[in-house]
Amino acid sequence: MTPHQDKRTGRVTLIGAGPGAADLITVRGARLLGEAQVVLHDALVSPEMLAWCPQAQLVEVGKRCGQRSTAQLFINRQIVDLATKYERVVRLKGGDPMLFGRADEELQALEAAGIEYEVVPGITAALAAASAIRKPLTKRGVSRSVAFATQAKAADAVDVEADVRADTIVYYMGRDQAANIAAQLIAHGKPASTPAWVVEAATTAKQRSHQFTLRQMAVGEAAAWMDPVQPSLLMIGEALADRATEAVEEAGPDGHHHERAA
Amino acid sequence: MTPHQDKRTGRVTLIGAGPGAADLITVRGARLLGEAQVVLHDALVSPEMLAWCPQAQLVEVGKRCGQRSTAQLFINRQIVDLATKYERVVRLKGGDPMLFGRADEELQALEAAGIEYEVVPGITAALAAASAIRKPLTKRGVSRSVAFATQAKAADAVDVEADVRADTIVYYMGRDQAANIAAQLIAHGKPASTPAWVVEAATTAKQRSHQFTLRQMAVGEAAAWMDPVQPSLLMIGEALADRATEAVEEAGPDGHHHERAA
Repeated sequence: MTPHQDKRTGRVTLIGAGPGAADLITVRGARLLGEAQVVLHDALVSPEMLAWCPQAQLVEVGKRCGQRSTAQLFINRQIVDLATKYERVVRLKGGDPMLFGRADEELQALEAAGIEYEVVPGITAALAAASAIRKPLTKRGVSRSVAFATQAKAADAVDVEADVRADTIVYYMGRDQAANIAAQLIAHGKPASTPAWVVEAATTAKQRSHQFTLRQMAVGEAAAWMDPVQPSLLMIGEALADRATEAVEEAGPDGHHHERAA
Repeated sequence: MTPHQDKRTGRVTLIGAGPGAADLITVRGARLLGEAQVVLHDALVSPEMLAWCPQAQLVEVGKRCGQRSTAQLFINRQIVDLATKYERVVRLKGGDPMLFGRADEELQALEAAGIEYEVVPGITAALAAASAIRKPLTKRGVSRSVAFATQAKAADAVDVEADVRADTIVYYMGRDQAANIAAQLIAHGKPASTPAWVVEAATTAKQRSHQFTLRQMAVGEAAAWMDPVQPSLLMIGEALADRATEAVEEAGPDGHHHERAA
């Protein structure tokens, strides 16, 4: 056997871990984690999630809030390098790999190196948050379109023109710009009374949520409420209004939910 | 024990079945299916998916393509009625319950009847299709927003103004309007060269996909290619272009994929 033949190239699976709770990964994702020899995971992935792969060598990569390009290049190189050493490599990413996951850069690196891969989707945070607060993103006669967007730019560069037309808008990584985003959405014609939810750490033990109006968010009430350590989503749209039938949820100062009749 | 006390009210779980493949349901969803006494499921849910709940009584509800309001009212009544007879009722819905799932009407009925419920999210078809064709919906420097939309209206009422500003647009249930949607997107400023994918029956054995340009879709090429029996997605945006590194996928007349070097 020549050294060349000896150096088999492994197979890489990009897996979406989902929003946080260990049992909100897909059955396929959990099974492939259990077969992995090495797992490269984001910092956001919880110890409970990693209990699906007790047999695997773990490599923590990435940062909680945004990654510099150099860091992403390093991750790309690590994945390719590990695929030359192991047969079953998993790249575990929070949420879904194909939505705000920078999967494209990792897939490009794998393709350039001639490495086989597959992608297993995950529950994206917006859908998990909608289930958690029991509010649909679409509603017949009210909302027929949903936009998922990021606004990770500097405050003066926030541009909501492309988002404002969607009936429901979910901002990922929008915390620092919450007031600015809300003010601009109002300036672009969204009613100031539009329901504007903040959902933090959806589906984890630290989940909190609170309903504001767009006007309240614009004057900084949402920013004051949010915990800067937790990942958060801004969810804006008439579909997220209280149903006539339901108890109104309120998050108390202890972070727990209290219910009262509407 | 009085008759009133004897008539305990059950708990209902709305579960997203995901895009089709039985192992793309969440671990939580599969577990709760296995504990259900009765499962109300859409026609689109496969026998393989229902293998998660061999113990349960099955009730098929809903139609493949759209539901009339009367049908939805009947489903709402059935869920409430079953919750008065069984302790563990599951409502299994294709994709994710909170996105184009008419969950709001079912939740409203449950709340009006005072029935406890929870919602378990599912992989929505757009994310499953993105994984299947290995194309991210967002791409750094190319796409920072994604819109999921429906256009189930009559041809002359199609309105893409709200969708066209998103960097990537995914139409659910857009097959009959594909040419019309594409023509209007071009008229509203989307370049005619924009990649426009059709993905049918994502993640099932019948999955097919093909990349068109928006111009080709506008002149009816996508409509001619599609199988009207299968559920399909239209996925439009520059983020879905071929990567320089990858083999180009082509769907042949036999419906299988052939690859050639780019």
